[in-house]
Amino acid sequence: MNTPVMESIGLTVHLPIPYEQAIGRATDALKAEGFGVLTEIDVKATMKKKLDVDFRRYVILGACNPPLAHKALSASLDIGLLLPCNVIVYEEGEGSVVSLVDPMSMMRMTGVEGLDEMAQEARQRLERVRDTLAAG
Amino acid sequence: MNTPVMESIGLTVHLPIPYEQAIGRATDALKAEGFGVLTEIDVKATMKKKLDVDFRRYVILGACNPPLAHKALSASLDIGLLLPCNVIVYEEGEGSVVSLVDPMSMMRMTGVEGLDEMAQEARQRLERVRDTLAAG
Repeated sequence: MNTPVMESIGLTVHLPIPYEQAIGRATDALKAEGFGVLTEIDVKATMKKKLDVDFRRYVILGACNPPLAHKALSASLDIGLLLPCNVIVYEEGEGSVVSLVDPMSMMRMTGVEGLDEMAQEARQRLERVRDTLAAG
Repeated sequence: MNTPVMESIGLTVHLPIPYEQAIGRATDALKAEGFGVLTEIDVKATMKKKLDVDFRRYVILGACNPPLAHKALSASLDIGLLLPCNVIVYEEGEGSVVSLVDPMSMMRMTGVEGLDEMAQEARQRLERVRDTLAAG
């Protein structure tokens, strides 16, 4: 079973390019919007190492736009529970899927006032990342 | 302004011990519940490096329980948007605060069926981590 993409929390794009190339293009597109990749979890390697099970190639990138993160953390210290912005890349058939977490969905969950503007700016930037990737 | 701890998405404990020690104790308590720390973002250092601003000592740990993560990803590939489980540690006065993300809150947001059981188990484990830390 693979439940369909959670449109509600992710901005998703299917790309007709190999996995490694998709990671590179996603990283570049994030950079152009001011997001650096601070963390990277190789899910396939982790599953092999920890559980000795085979999993598709899959990476979880932790992307951070420092000025936006600083504003958010200054408004609410605990917002770090939702940072950085996750970007997942995985192989699917001959191509790849990139999904970027929707900061608006995440912020709504917190019920914290005063974060809407930052979440909206982050979302707009990540939408542009998705659009850049989709445009090839 | 610092909006109060988001009880709804975090399991939080205030500890009367220094920051570095709190990180060590949190890491040990996570390990005892099967969570390895896969990523670590030094927020203070990142803010200094990227923005040249001073921030309190603050770390975002990415904690992962491999069997639970594997089950969740097998049920829904896109659950990687919400992994790993964030654990934040920051200094507050003479002491420290540790907050662990509540997997149930996160999963509820997705609307994906079939993840409740895993989220509940993850939450129970993280509650035990919080209780262990609170007990000193």
